[in-house]
Amino acid sequence: MSVEDQVAPPGRAATAVEEPDADRLDLPVVLAALADPGRLAIVRALAECGEECCVKVGEQAGLTVGKSTLSHHLKVLRESGVTHTRTQGTHRYVSLRRDDLDSAFPHLLDAVLAWRDRS
Amino acid sequence: MSVEDQVAPPGRAATAVEEPDADRLDLPVVLAALADPGRLAIVRALAECGEECCVKVGEQAGLTVGKSTLSHHLKVLRESGVTHTRTQGTHRYVSLRRDDLDSAFPHLLDAVLAWRDRS
Repeated sequence: MSVEDQVAPPGRAATAVEEPDADRLDLPVVLAALADPGRLAIVRALAECGEECCVKVGEQAGLTVGKSTLSHHLKVLRESGVTHTRTQGTHRYVSLRRDDLDSAFPHLLDAVLAWRDRS
Repeated sequence: MSVEDQVAPPGRAATAVEEPDADRLDLPVVLAALADPGRLAIVRALAECGEECCVKVGEQAGLTVGKSTLSHHLKVLRESGVTHTRTQGTHRYVSLRRDDLDSAFPHLLDAVLAWRDRS
């Protein structure tokens, strides 16, 4: 069990998940996080719908991947600083760190979001 | 021997190296190509100096990597469509495909080039 919105382990419900500070965002790491069609779909979904429950963001993004793949994508996005994960009770909610990204890499997110896969 | 500006194999001097057409550039592939500090340094060097002989672009980018690593970086950049490689006689020259990139992903390259590593 590891989709990020699953029930948090006992005693960890109030613990923030690991995310880099805004002044530690690193371009190669962020680009690597974005360099995947599934993660790009998640980022696009979050840009459109705002904060979303982690399981639902998979549906929202139109992904048909399994739980472990979705968990992996969400972990990569969170650890790179692309997304913020908020724990509320036993659930987790994910959102784009748009302000942090725009501040660290002006216009990058807009350039990425403007792209539409033509395949 | 495989740095891209080494002497081209006999009979291949006039053969164009494999590069994707402008209308086949793919954002995840381009982001993956850019998601490396060494390749970002090469892209920045090419943005500043224009076309460069493949061996010299390593120096220009301030890289101290070996030939095989430089070859790998140049191959990834070329195959993703970030760079164009021109064969002249027995040497190869590399340049940014700025127009193609700007057309496919407006503002992406500028956003990437604007970043300076603070580490």
